[in-house]
Amino acid sequence: MARYKLTLEYDGTGLAGWQKQKDVLSLQKIFEDAILDLTQEKVEAIASGRTDAGVHAYGQVVHVDITKQFEPYNMMLGINFYLHNKPIAVVDISIVDDTFHARFDAKKRYYRYQIINRKAPIVLQKNRAWNIHHELDIKLMRKGAEYLLGNHDFASFRAAACQAKNSIRTIDKIEIIKNGEVIFIDVEAKSFLHHMVRNIVGTLKMVGTKEWQPEKVQEILEAKNRIKAGSTAPACGLFFMKVKY
Amino acid sequence: MARYKLTLEYDGTGLAGWQKQKDVLSLQKIFEDAILDLTQEKVEAIASGRTDAGVHAYGQVVHVDITKQFEPYNMMLGINFYLHNKPIAVVDISIVDDTFHARFDAKKRYYRYQIINRKAPIVLQKNRAWNIHHELDIKLMRKGAEYLLGNHDFASFRAAACQAKNSIRTIDKIEIIKNGEVIFIDVEAKSFLHHMVRNIVGTLKMVGTKEWQPEKVQEILEAKNRIKAGSTAPACGLFFMKVKY
Repeated sequence: MARYKLTLEYDGTGLAGWQKQKDVLSLQKIFEDAILDLTQEKVEAIASGRTDAGVHAYGQVVHVDITKQFEPYNMMLGINFYLHNKPIAVVDISIVDDTFHARFDAKKRYYRYQIINRKAPIVLQKNRAWNIHHELDIKLMRKGAEYLLGNHDFASFRAAACQAKNSIRTIDKIEIIKNGEVIFIDVEAKSFLHHMVRNIVGTLKMVGTKEWQPEKVQEILEAKNRIKAGSTAPACGLFFMKVKY
Repeated sequence: MARYKLTLEYDGTGLAGWQKQKDVLSLQKIFEDAILDLTQEKVEAIASGRTDAGVHAYGQVVHVDITKQFEPYNMMLGINFYLHNKPIAVVDISIVDDTFHARFDAKKRYYRYQIINRKAPIVLQKNRAWNIHHELDIKLMRKGAEYLLGNHDFASFRAAACQAKNSIRTIDKIEIIKNGEVIFIDVEAKSFLHHMVRNIVGTLKMVGTKEWQPEKVQEILEAKNRIKAGSTAPACGLFFMKVKY
């Protein structure tokens, strides 16, 4: 038996998210089915984190244990063969020590949120960005984002369904990059609460449109109350970029 | 009557290209139908250039003459309303002098070709890039591209179906940008021959994989014979970026 670490790219559009659930199609199910087709082994793929319905990944990391022996590169080709025309692909693979754990060993997770800030509808980036028509003030958004940096209780930014034991998290970096009408919000942390990045983006959007002052972000943090923050930004703009171990 | 200049973004996937043709769906037809829906006027949209089946645009420019009076921004909203869920949108609009001509007045056209250079299949950039598995040597490609800069007879890079009177063209800039596995080939010229960018990319790919020496690009130019150059790169990697007037 060997443990494989695999990096996955996927398009979350129209799917129920990473995690297997009854009666809906998930990325985990599509991926595990491809492994079954290749290896005839029923495995459970352990991911570094779940992603919600509609959220994409450039660098989700999972581990699986396989009994049959495969040279890693051939295994990647084999899985991708069975994933042909599916919205997911293996982009990297290696054999790791059998103590490696995709979720528990993750030291840092990187998310990117994409906004296209223009009046016109999105065509080429459809399902890949949040189309905000009202002009966003990036300087104000950056000012608001600064309050979120570091160790805080993010209860105001946590989904009602969040299962984490506590809501204390540390944001190591939050960067807002503007290139013409395209805005990226890059967020790095060891771990995140459910909907945390999307709730942060929904809040910073209110600052960018000047409906809220940047200082309000501080008040929202202190309130520790989800209803104080902005609404959850659409899933389609969120990309799980990579994991550091 | 007023002449409107419109900038269009479109996704060419699965369509017959810009130009109206019998029995197939073109971007021109979708666009003109939306104008008809809004204005009740049957117009012909004159584009800065045709794009082939499967080719995308971030900045195609067209002009149309409309008899009814519209404030330009409202006209953009109106057309986009009728283009809802279609793979095309108006991203900019203005009223221009009635001597303005989208095709004949164009001073420079900008194309970008996107390659994703990796073994794994493409997921998030599906239909938006050429997936080349063999590792490309960018330095050699840049060396090969230099031979194409300036004024030449591009007969070797012209499609058999090309209707241009002569095949002399001037490439003002050809730049190859690499960012990880993503490679952009940006090409600027006043005008292009049919398939010219895609034939250039197909040729530079042969240089990048070391099947051909960079110097061979010079020989291909001198041969003035289409069969000497590389095969035509896939349409899905090509983006018509903008037009300068």
